[in-house]
Amino acid sequence: MTQLEISPERLRAFSDGVIAIIVTIMVLELKLPEHAGERGLVHGLLAPLAPKLGCYAISFLVVVTMWGNHYALMATVQHVTRTILWLNNHLLFWMSLIPFATGFLGDNPRLVDAHVVYAFVLTMSVVSFTLMRWHGVRQSRENPGLAAVHLAVLKKSLLATALYALAMPLAYVSIWAPVAIFIAVPVMFFLPIFAHRGAA
Amino acid sequence: MTQLEISPERLRAFSDGVIAIIVTIMVLELKLPEHAGERGLVHGLLAPLAPKLGCYAISFLVVVTMWGNHYALMATVQHVTRTILWLNNHLLFWMSLIPFATGFLGDNPRLVDAHVVYAFVLTMSVVSFTLMRWHGVRQSRENPGLAAVHLAVLKKSLLATALYALAMPLAYVSIWAPVAIFIAVPVMFFLPIFAHRGAA
Amino acid sequence: MTQLEISPERLRAFSDGVIAIIVTIMVLELKLPEHAGERGLVHGLLAPLAPKLGCYAISFLVVVTMWGNHYALMATVQHVTRTILWLNNHLLFWMSLIPFATGFLGDNPRLVDAHVVYAFVLTMSVVSFTLMRWHGVRQSRENPGLAAVHLAVLKKSLLATALYALAMPLAYVSIWAPVAIFIAVPVMFFLPIFAHRGAA
Amino acid sequence: MTQLEISPERLRAFSDGVIAIIVTIMVLELKLPEHAGERGLVHGLLAPLAPKLGCYAISFLVVVTMWGNHYALMATVQHVTRTILWLNNHLLFWMSLIPFATGFLGDNPRLVDAHVVYAFVLTMSVVSFTLMRWHGVRQSRENPGLAAVHLAVLKKSLLATALYALAMPLAYVSIWAPVAIFIAVPVMFFLPIFAHRGAA
Repeated sequence: MTQLEISPERLRAFSDGVIAIIVTIMVLELKLPEHAGERGLVHGLLAPLAPKLGCYAISFLVVVTMWGNHYALMATVQHVTRTILWLNNHLLFWMSLIPFATGFLGDNPRLVDAHVVYAFVLTMSVVSFTLMRWHGVRQSRENPGLAAVHLAVLKKSLLATALYALAMPLAYVSIWAPVAIFIAVPVMFFLPIFAHRGAA
Repeated sequence: MTQLEISPERLRAFSDGVIAIIVTIMVLELKLPEHAGERGLVHGLLAPLAPKLGCYAISFLVVVTMWGNHYALMATVQHVTRTILWLNNHLLFWMSLIPFATGFLGDNPRLVDAHVVYAFVLTMSVVSFTLMRWHGVRQSRENPGLAAVHLAVLKKSLLATALYALAMPLAYVSIWAPVAIFIAVPVMFFLPIFAHRGAA
Repeated sequence: MTQLEISPERLRAFSDGVIAIIVTIMVLELKLPEHAGERGLVHGLLAPLAPKLGCYAISFLVVVTMWGNHYALMATVQHVTRTILWLNNHLLFWMSLIPFATGFLGDNPRLVDAHVVYAFVLTMSVVSFTLMRWHGVRQSRENPGLAAVHLAVLKKSLLATALYALAMPLAYVSIWAPVAIFIAVPVMFFLPIFAHRGAA
Repeated sequence: MTQLEISPERLRAFSDGVIAIIVTIMVLELKLPEHAGERGLVHGLLAPLAPKLGCYAISFLVVVTMWGNHYALMATVQHVTRTILWLNNHLLFWMSLIPFATGFLGDNPRLVDAHVVYAFVLTMSVVSFTLMRWHGVRQSRENPGLAAVHLAVLKKSLLATALYALAMPLAYVSIWAPVAIFIAVPVMFFLPIFAHRGAA
């Protein structure tokens, strides 16, 4: 590592692998209580599953969007410096905690602390992403077009960071505030129609 | 993601990774009750394992077939548009629920709701696939040969969708109806000999 | 799948992914009983861990060897026919049961049925492999050098199959008979020094 | 395997896959006791999570660093000999035990044996790595520049091995001694600023 450079393709492939596993093992948290089926489809299944499935769907949306953004960001990287390598490791670390936070919130949908933990992990993931993007802005000073693209996305990342960070104190007011943010952020920033409008 | 195109190879590699994990983590649902071995090979092992293993085998068959179909479909994609990216994410989301539905049905083979949940997840997975295929038909209007191929597979996908959807109400009549459909669909549509005949 | 050929590289990459996951999730079966540590390093840890770790080490050896053999076998494949695709899926299915069988034997090292189940899964895995190799012999009729290589490995695969199959009835005589076979087969067939001698 | 050479790219891709899974499934060990949330954020969550999360963070750091080193080491490999293949399998075996050791230490942070087990698995992982590096030194005799690079890293690997091995007896004196080593080794050897200084 001190003597040989890692190719961007290689770092991307490794990160892709880690992200693919993150997005998939989250489904292992979808566990039903035993004898769940004996209490009927609505009370035994849908009621306990709804919050778990909702959390899973939101986290799935967040992680696959991060994959797309990670792909786009890495495509601008010419040389994997030590800084990029460790910013990337830092990002993967926080993203790897998303399945844990998702499972905890899905199991305790009415617990304020579970909302705080989930918001914290998402905040740190987006912060890690923003750090990589900020590094990209600095690296592309000589390429004004690329710098402008980085800057546009950086602003969106900062707004997402602020909203996720805000979800933590708001959870103590009402758990519906973080829920609204958890749903709104991916919808506003990530879904094609809005993102397209934002890019126009 | 707004500014840089994802290459088809890359999206395929990421999807391959997710599908490889989906097909493999299903085996984690194959758990025996404790002290299973003390009740003998037939009552302690084979009896509780049979439905779990049967569900696993069917889901394995469904997922590896979907992998092959996904490969073939993606091979026709020249540019990864936002629509394709999100149709693909949508497909991976429903496929990622297959291990959960498989484990639930394997644990509760006599529960009507477990059959409904399994049929629902398979229906949505095939619907997602059909949407991607339908997008393929529209994209390949200028290439009549490709459009014909897409259309032929689209018809088979629609039939599979209808059968899986039908399994949900039929489960309330008899759990053997969905079981017959779960076995028949992969055998009819996927196994080499029948598929070959259908392609002739 | 009916209309587009899967490239050998692609099938190999997908299989590699599945095998990498199989070999790694086995470690999730390495669970210690709660409060294990309170009974001291020897009785609390080493005694319950030894059979689990032994099974894991043997399965690890079997799966990484199969990966190497799979790689060598696939390198001879020019076109992925439907037959090869489904022989490969068949192989992955049985290999995917190795973590389950490993966990079951590790938890129940003195249970005859656990040895039978483990021997059965290994037998089926090697049988699947032998079928692929046999297909390779038939495909390479026009290339005598390749056919000779396939035939040499086929003989070894058949011997391994016979030994694993023999482990099942022998387990009812003494559980040490299958244990000896589980240890001997990878050592005899797979380890470099013996394999090298066998290839000379 | 006896007749066809595995390409270095292929072995690297397979190892990358296994390492990506190792680093990600560790997060599955991050389980909270039931009703954890009911005892408040500090006592119910932070107190039980802190040691688990600390172990996870250290192991994450160790494994991603090993990934980087493995990448650099494999980049010097021209031909995958049997020796390299099995040294690599040996390395992956010990690395695959890191999630188990991490979970065990995270669950039992005050248990001496848990520190011994964790130190043992890290020792064996670094020993396996050192063996591969030592093989690299021997292979690159004709290339003095490469040999010098290998030798420089080999010395650091030997020091890390010695420290991890020392952590085992020291754990019986005080559990804080291994903790200090577990934190110090990745910080001293792996973090960019120190590694950079060391390479200067």
